[in-house]
Amino acid sequence: MMVKDSVFGLKGNIVYSKTPKQLEICENSYLVCEKNLVKGVYQELPEEYKKIPVEDYGDCLIIPGLVDLHIHAPQYTFRGLGMDMELLDWLETNTFPEEAKYKNLEYARMAYQIFVDNLRKGATTRACIFATVHRQATLLLMDLLEGSGLHTMVGKVNMDRNCPDYLREETEESASETVEWMKDIQHNKYKKTQAILTPRFIPSCTDELMEKLKMIQMRYQTPVQSHLSENYGEISWVQELCPESEFYGDAYDQFGLFGVDCKTVMAHCVHSDAREIARIKENGVFIAHCPESNMNLASGVAPIRTFLDEGLHVGLGSDVAGGTTENLFTAMAHAVQASKLRWRLKDDSLKPLTASEVFYMATKGGGEFFGKVGSFEPGYELDAVILDDSRLVHPQEINVQQRLERLIYFSDDREVYAKYVAGEKLF
Amino acid sequence: MMVKDSVFGLKGNIVYSKTPKQLEICENSYLVCEKNLVKGVYQELPEEYKKIPVEDYGDCLIIPGLVDLHIHAPQYTFRGLGMDMELLDWLETNTFPEEAKYKNLEYARMAYQIFVDNLRKGATTRACIFATVHRQATLLLMDLLEGSGLHTMVGKVNMDRNCPDYLREETEESASETVEWMKDIQHNKYKKTQAILTPRFIPSCTDELMEKLKMIQMRYQTPVQSHLSENYGEISWVQELCPESEFYGDAYDQFGLFGVDCKTVMAHCVHSDAREIARIKENGVFIAHCPESNMNLASGVAPIRTFLDEGLHVGLGSDVAGGTTENLFTAMAHAVQASKLRWRLKDDSLKPLTASEVFYMATKGGGEFFGKVGSFEPGYELDAVILDDSRLVHPQEINVQQRLERLIYFSDDREVYAKYVAGEKLF
Repeated sequence: MMVKDSVFGLKGNIVYSKTPKQLEICENSYLVCEKNLVKGVYQELPEEYKKIPVEDYGDCLIIPGLVDLHIHAPQYTFRGLGMDMELLDWLETNTFPEEAKYKNLEYARMAYQIFVDNLRKGATTRACIFATVHRQATLLLMDLLEGSGLHTMVGKVNMDRNCPDYLREETEESASETVEWMKDIQHNKYKKTQAILTPRFIPSCTDELMEKLKMIQMRYQTPVQSHLSENYGEISWVQELCPESEFYGDAYDQFGLFGVDCKTVMAHCVHSDAREIARIKENGVFIAHCPESNMNLASGVAPIRTFLDEGLHVGLGSDVAGGTTENLFTAMAHAVQASKLRWRLKDDSLKPLTASEVFYMATKGGGEFFGKVGSFEPGYELDAVILDDSRLVHPQEINVQQRLERLIYFSDDREVYAKYVAGEKLF
Repeated sequence: MMVKDSVFGLKGNIVYSKTPKQLEICENSYLVCEKNLVKGVYQELPEEYKKIPVEDYGDCLIIPGLVDLHIHAPQYTFRGLGMDMELLDWLETNTFPEEAKYKNLEYARMAYQIFVDNLRKGATTRACIFATVHRQATLLLMDLLEGSGLHTMVGKVNMDRNCPDYLREETEESASETVEWMKDIQHNKYKKTQAILTPRFIPSCTDELMEKLKMIQMRYQTPVQSHLSENYGEISWVQELCPESEFYGDAYDQFGLFGVDCKTVMAHCVHSDAREIARIKENGVFIAHCPESNMNLASGVAPIRTFLDEGLHVGLGSDVAGGTTENLFTAMAHAVQASKLRWRLKDDSLKPLTASEVFYMATKGGGEFFGKVGSFEPGYELDAVILDDSRLVHPQEINVQQRLERLIYFSDDREVYAKYVAGEKLF
């Protein structure tokens, strides 16, 4: 473990993004960390760092830790199962019955331990995580995550309508449990685990609950996460439920839970129209692009090229269990692939995404939701993943950029050789 | 190693397809093999088999070996690289320069050994493989494959136009080298490795060469593999090159290399029109559906639902390096996912594929190209893969069908615990 104020270096083939198009590649270089922050990347160590301890990772790649902007911890148990439904049926059939089990803390501990262990083993260093409506199980998940060394935001889900009775909270109960949860967290003094307010989505939350949640958000200054414009059926349902809203995102905005004075991340935005995109931009809302989930639930493909061109904040989400895997390399590959099918089948004015762009989204793009995270530019928190790709043997010479592209398509936890989060070495 | 005429049993959770919709699941059952053929699947061993040796695989799944109907061995080196181009540019930029290296047998040995080792480790038991134009390197690949225990069809590629000079064969040379190759193979007496005639695709082969290839096909009674209707640019090019052809497939048919009196497999068929589909059906041509490649090269999504409804022969192809991985579980997942995006973005009259359907395609659908292969019905050659999914821990009960669905999304060579091809145990 690193001492908080120590200075140290990592040596290897360093790769990180400055912008979606600009990939920095520094072969056989040094990444210097001081007080958990990146000081710089150097071909040769500057004089003042000549004596710092350096971990030499040889020919490995060193990349920023990956950031998962959207994942459901309780759904990890049924990833890869029941993939033949669209969103609303899938929620009723797969999701709600499983989430109900987390009332039982013994089950929750067993299930969440598997989730946390696997998240820790992979390349993810930060994540925005949905739990369930259950306060105690959510705290248990937060305890496990705090112990893992990952930095996460975790949400107790709020849901007081349009779900089975066995999961539905009364409005008042949902609000008061959320307040109790906030107090529990203040008491628990987590260092790496934050609360994030988590109304499941508009169809699950009455107006009254949303108003109470806004007050809680202001009182405790929490960020917010939810779902937006994922599926056509969902979108028309929101229009019925909130007839006064101009569009889906406007429904959140009317309750003050859409970026203004509260950092907000919305998953999906597959079918966001021009007005919604404009509001997302105006309010600085982050988008969690979840390409695999959007394929698996046949939702469609979000117009990420438009989002990038507009300068929106876009990161990647695995969205387990709409997505099957927490592996964000896979999410990068799916983002490229989905964008190619969107280009071919729907709209050839939006060029497919490139490897450099999806790498940016999985690092700096999503990392910004956590502050200065996801890059190796000076002043960024040092989240680093060391990738050993020696399993992927090849007879020809390939350069570092090619090795990164290949890793996007192939790597899993076998390639994750070492991992640092906010300057701390996890393994 | 099993003695050829021995009788033995495998015990475990046996899963196989009879039809695309009909998945047979026999928990804790016995699969009996006699003279390399399946005798039957039994809940209890029948009296006459009570004393046969049985390999007990406990709680593992036992499935038919997977069949890859389309893969390019020399492209394995650059899988996952240079994924930002469409077909014709990608051939010029990535493929041809790499394939040229296989003139050097030392390079070919190094590269092909990696390919064969990895193919052997996974769940694939049979494959239709493209080599390069080089006869010696193709024989070397066949030697390595023969040693691997896999059953494969391998093609020396024919190509006498529209490719760089460093790869292009003279027409006469292409034909005579192919004949020499056939003779070499008769001499080598492979047991598991067959020759398959491999004109790369219409744009690469002059009419004169195609006529010669038909004669060689008849003389040596080989099957045929090639590419069909993958990409719009390619299709219009074929129309220019063969103005007398009614459609792309008709160009092959006019040369007698499209299923009539020669077992033929065509990769892709993304953009096959009604006439082409009718001809494919009439001639009994097999289709190798390569969903990942068709995403990566932005080709589109083949209408597999139509092909299945029409009763065409459809199997899966990894199409490395248009596809990035030889893992056919991944190909199954991609087939489902691509069909969902096709349904959402292009044509909602064609329902997405199901797990059962893609499993059928990866086993019995493609297996039929090799004879009675890909199922555990009596009389089928015993290709079996034993999958140990204990790495994928879960807190809840899940049944065998769910375990199979999950394996489609997750498994890689780590799950392949044992493997049998045509009754022979590989590991």
